[in-house]
Amino acid sequence: MKENTNKYDFGTVTLDDKNSELIILDQTLLPNETQYLHLKTQESIWDAIYQLQVRGAPAIGVAAAAGIYLGVKNSTTTTYDEFYEEFMKKKQYLASSRPTAVNLFWALDRMEQCVKSNKDKSIEDIKKALLQEAHAIKEEDIKVCKTIGEYGLSLVEPNIGILTHCNAGALATAAYGTALSPIYLGQEKGYNFKVFADETRPLLQGARLTTYELHRAGVDVTLICDNMASSVMRNGWVQAVFVGCDRVAANGDTANKIGTSGVAILAKHYNVPVYICAPTSTIDMNCATGWDITIEQREPEEVTEKWYEKRMAPEGVKVYNPAFDVTDAQFITAIITEYGIAKPPFKKSLKEIFEKKESADHSTSL
Amino acid sequence: MKENTNKYDFGTVTLDDKNSELIILDQTLLPNETQYLHLKTQESIWDAIYQLQVRGAPAIGVAAAAGIYLGVKNSTTTTYDEFYEEFMKKKQYLASSRPTAVNLFWALDRMEQCVKSNKDKSIEDIKKALLQEAHAIKEEDIKVCKTIGEYGLSLVEPNIGILTHCNAGALATAAYGTALSPIYLGQEKGYNFKVFADETRPLLQGARLTTYELHRAGVDVTLICDNMASSVMRNGWVQAVFVGCDRVAANGDTANKIGTSGVAILAKHYNVPVYICAPTSTIDMNCATGWDITIEQREPEEVTEKWYEKRMAPEGVKVYNPAFDVTDAQFITAIITEYGIAKPPFKKSLKEIFEKKESADHSTSL
Repeated sequence: MKENTNKYDFGTVTLDDKNSELIILDQTLLPNETQYLHLKTQESIWDAIYQLQVRGAPAIGVAAAAGIYLGVKNSTTTTYDEFYEEFMKKKQYLASSRPTAVNLFWALDRMEQCVKSNKDKSIEDIKKALLQEAHAIKEEDIKVCKTIGEYGLSLVEPNIGILTHCNAGALATAAYGTALSPIYLGQEKGYNFKVFADETRPLLQGARLTTYELHRAGVDVTLICDNMASSVMRNGWVQAVFVGCDRVAANGDTANKIGTSGVAILAKHYNVPVYICAPTSTIDMNCATGWDITIEQREPEEVTEKWYEKRMAPEGVKVYNPAFDVTDAQFITAIITEYGIAKPPFKKSLKEIFEKKESADHSTSL
Repeated sequence: MKENTNKYDFGTVTLDDKNSELIILDQTLLPNETQYLHLKTQESIWDAIYQLQVRGAPAIGVAAAAGIYLGVKNSTTTTYDEFYEEFMKKKQYLASSRPTAVNLFWALDRMEQCVKSNKDKSIEDIKKALLQEAHAIKEEDIKVCKTIGEYGLSLVEPNIGILTHCNAGALATAAYGTALSPIYLGQEKGYNFKVFADETRPLLQGARLTTYELHRAGVDVTLICDNMASSVMRNGWVQAVFVGCDRVAANGDTANKIGTSGVAILAKHYNVPVYICAPTSTIDMNCATGWDITIEQREPEEVTEKWYEKRMAPEGVKVYNPAFDVTDAQFITAIITEYGIAKPPFKKSLKEIFEKKESADHSTSL
């Protein structure tokens, strides 16, 4: 098992260039087993993303960047055109592993950009640049998550109750998490949050992952079934909802784990603010509204059989199993990015966030 | 296995006087095993109610009436006072099995009333009257459910989508069910409903019981996780919500399976009417509002361990596991009883329902 220098880093995704492997914590085995997978082939990386052994939009981005680097690292092509062709084939393949998480495409596009901008260099030097870029994507993710945590923390008072859905924690990112980042940073300051974690059916990321990492960090966390969120809010136990996201549209509509839209509608009714924690890599300004987001549909057996000792519904019963839903922008209080906090109307505020980002990128490159 | 003459009767609860036993279908084993329990002792009946082997407010009432009869059937007391004392001890014991379902108390009170109104008869004749009353409670439940189904069906059009939560079907009653009764009666008329069944964590009554009985009856049913209700409604697939209830307060606030209040709030947002199917035995006019209803809290292990091959949350994590929640009257479109349909304001309309009931009872007894 790898060493953790940071208590909010679980070694979710690590690129080991020396051994030409991607090391990921197999999240399908948590909380019962802590097992790291050593992936060497494109197929095994594709599979790990599809099977949710690595999951969470930011972590998927980090894994895909490392994955595509490993895919071309030993390329025997000798010309740029051949190399680029091989790269694109592998890129397309990895991109097909999950359709909703925009970070997957964002990270692969960024790696492609790296190839292109090093066109005039030798193949070996392009490979070196790709390695550097893959590491940079991970390092940036850690910084982005920490910054989102700081902005998020600025929105809340100590001693409040926070509800979260699915897992947008250290396990979903390179470290800290997005939605859990304000909670961790608050914990360090003695904010004494009381966190309620939706178990998040059917894959139970809330029960298996969120309670696991918050409990390990000493945060006061209570597990509930998804259908208990209304009861918890009615009891007055929740003053803020923090969730992550898989894709945010230009108008603020947000695709996140199935159930998020329900939580947001309930929160509005109970006057609880809803905060979406969104690295700008998750915001898709080319996507006008939530209706343009493709929602991944998954296997019925995840609902009827997975985890169970016996089948929990009769054979032959139909099942609807979307992995995500879309929360209308009207139910979102703020979208927290690494470039600041966007408030409604989001069409305007998200545009401003990207202007800020571009001007920051520009000043960095000067 | 007992013979079913009615396809909407699963033999949920049967009093076998000849063999002095209560026969119930063990619902904890569904959908994988169909096993009938033959209960002879008060302890085993208490346990069957507590363990949810028999569940659903109406079915619990029917079981409790039969249970208390069996409890005093072989009483060796010789005076009324001794008999009454023994009856009351057993009544109190059975009443302690579940705190929220008002039908439990209603049925036991009705049996007590039967003892009292036969005070002047011999102990043997009181026993005979109790046997008759226990049978009457069951027969009435079947009639009540069918009538609720007819009223419910009058509120909807053919070919619509209906969402239901938990199980308020034939398995929760003597036959037909409450919330599923309109669906069954519609099925007979070729109404072609498309039903969405919330799986209903943590005990999965929707997955295990509702899909089981609707599928068996040939109804088009789709299983969803509780957190998918918002997605299904957003897709425009649901035109009505039908649910049962465990206790309705005089102002219309309704305690039902945990998650119902969330479904009702979502339905209001999506402009979908919410219908509570409530035998008058479930309406507690002595309970002013939902805040006066005691909510049963159950074991954490139901959330973290039950049904699973392995534990699904780390050891030591806190769990909140209320069996019920309260839906505010403002989210309820109508409460459907065997004496008609109550609409807001419920304080007035429920009172009128009870006036109608009393006048019907009065004319029957004339």
